[in-house]
Amino acid sequence: MAKEKLYGGIEAGGTKFVCSVASGPGQVVEEIRFPTTTPEETLRKTIQFFQSYVDSGQVRTIGAGCFGPLDIDPNSATYGFITATPKPHWSNTNVRGMLQDVLRVDIAIDTDVNAAAIGEAMWGASRGIDPSLYVTIGTGIGGGYLVNGRPLFGLQNLEMGHLRIPHSRELDPFEGCCPFHGDCFEGLAAGPAIEKRLGTKGATVPESDPFWDIEAEYIASALMNYILTLSPRKIILGGGVMQREFLFPKVRNRVRKLLNGYVSSSAILQDIGDYIVPPGLGNQSGSLGAIAMAMQLEESNNDPRL
Amino acid sequence: MAKEKLYGGIEAGGTKFVCSVASGPGQVVEEIRFPTTTPEETLRKTIQFFQSYVDSGQVRTIGAGCFGPLDIDPNSATYGFITATPKPHWSNTNVRGMLQDVLRVDIAIDTDVNAAAIGEAMWGASRGIDPSLYVTIGTGIGGGYLVNGRPLFGLQNLEMGHLRIPHSRELDPFEGCCPFHGDCFEGLAAGPAIEKRLGTKGATVPESDPFWDIEAEYIASALMNYILTLSPRKIILGGGVMQREFLFPKVRNRVRKLLNGYVSSSAILQDIGDYIVPPGLGNQSGSLGAIAMAMQLEESNNDPRL
Repeated sequence: MAKEKLYGGIEAGGTKFVCSVASGPGQVVEEIRFPTTTPEETLRKTIQFFQSYVDSGQVRTIGAGCFGPLDIDPNSATYGFITATPKPHWSNTNVRGMLQDVLRVDIAIDTDVNAAAIGEAMWGASRGIDPSLYVTIGTGIGGGYLVNGRPLFGLQNLEMGHLRIPHSRELDPFEGCCPFHGDCFEGLAAGPAIEKRLGTKGATVPESDPFWDIEAEYIASALMNYILTLSPRKIILGGGVMQREFLFPKVRNRVRKLLNGYVSSSAILQDIGDYIVPPGLGNQSGSLGAIAMAMQLEESNNDPRL
Repeated sequence: MAKEKLYGGIEAGGTKFVCSVASGPGQVVEEIRFPTTTPEETLRKTIQFFQSYVDSGQVRTIGAGCFGPLDIDPNSATYGFITATPKPHWSNTNVRGMLQDVLRVDIAIDTDVNAAAIGEAMWGASRGIDPSLYVTIGTGIGGGYLVNGRPLFGLQNLEMGHLRIPHSRELDPFEGCCPFHGDCFEGLAAGPAIEKRLGTKGATVPESDPFWDIEAEYIASALMNYILTLSPRKIILGGGVMQREFLFPKVRNRVRKLLNGYVSSSAILQDIGDYIVPPGLGNQSGSLGAIAMAMQLEESNNDPRL
């Protein structure tokens, strides 16, 4: 019997790597998780995991959704590199090149949020919907935006976690903790900002705490700005902070109040519960998104028109 | 001698209409300007202007950049309509249909800012640059964003003038004058906000007035958000407020300070004077953009692949 065709996926996070071999959701053949240490050790483990699948010819393409700052400009000399980062050992690491040189398969690489957006568009909450936006609110805040099926890329990749939004110091005297911008969206609303402000992790703050209204206000301000500039047909909110499900109705209500009828789409006026949603793939948007990227790469390799 | 091939353009503003027949910049054969009154009268004048060019076969396509709210969803039953507007007589006006029914030519219609963005991309400051952003700061604030050569369109057209941005009531006690959002970007920084705050039109406020630093801060906050979400390769700032040229260096400096090195592109770190620029077509971005839209429409009509 011919061996099933499989794809490799790498969810390359700053804390841990998740490597998998699969043909789709619910069809994960093997998966491994290990902490992110030095580039040499981490990428050696990654290569070891995939080696037999590559040798047997079952895996010919691997997708990687990678923590950043990542150079994803195909025309750049450092395409596929992690560039200047405060994370020890990882500055100027050629992630794509190191994997490709040893495994000798085609590697599709993109940011972690773009990979998650691709996964959701292939199998999750934004299937068949374009343009779509995936935003993660966790240790950091970032977004991946797909238009015409592809991640938007311009001067560089998007950095929408660092938006400037209103911050009332009367309601919330916390000065923000983004090392670059102080009280930008990430500096006010990401996990570390919650912990620094309240002295405890967001996961342990009770639902009744009035802080959550402030958090919802920041998220809603940013979503309003995304809606006005990117006009997505669906917004998916993932990441650790959004595991607190009671935030969804709070955020939806605030978005509608802030827009105040200005965007007259029924998606917002009537069906906002179906417009701002949790990931359809749960916490697997990133790892399955990496598999989806590998599938797309193989498809474009096989398309004679491309 | 065969007659030269010409294109029709309509800059359909809320205050005045500019209709022209041209084959490109510097090649405007005839132009007419008249005030925007009722739809019947205004569109009758528009039709009269074009009639002979259409009858002679010289003009076969007309582009229209139109004030809004405008329905530009080709799949909508009200495509090409001005929808609900406080402007007397214009609510639910089928601009595209009325022109097409009488003139019997193909009409390309889009928002005024998208038309200006298209004009600048064809002949102006963003020629050959993609993605690009055109922002007008005048009576209102709006933006047109082109990606892969086309205006971004999602749930609806973009409304990026209404961004939520930081507003320090200590520095600027003015509460904002947007009827929908109070102190959104437009409510704080458009022409009427300046006039209401200072009791005089922006055009007469001296360059030395400290207010201009506040104005530049609002514009820079919005541009920072556009850069982080849309990553344009060029930003063009038009409209009446930006006629005050001294605002450009102020805005550029603030954008660079606010980003604080986070976007490491040389376009911002070194060449920001070439990144945030006035329109290459002066005050003709909109009217020439409408001509460009007509040319693009004829090209796609003639393309057997489309």
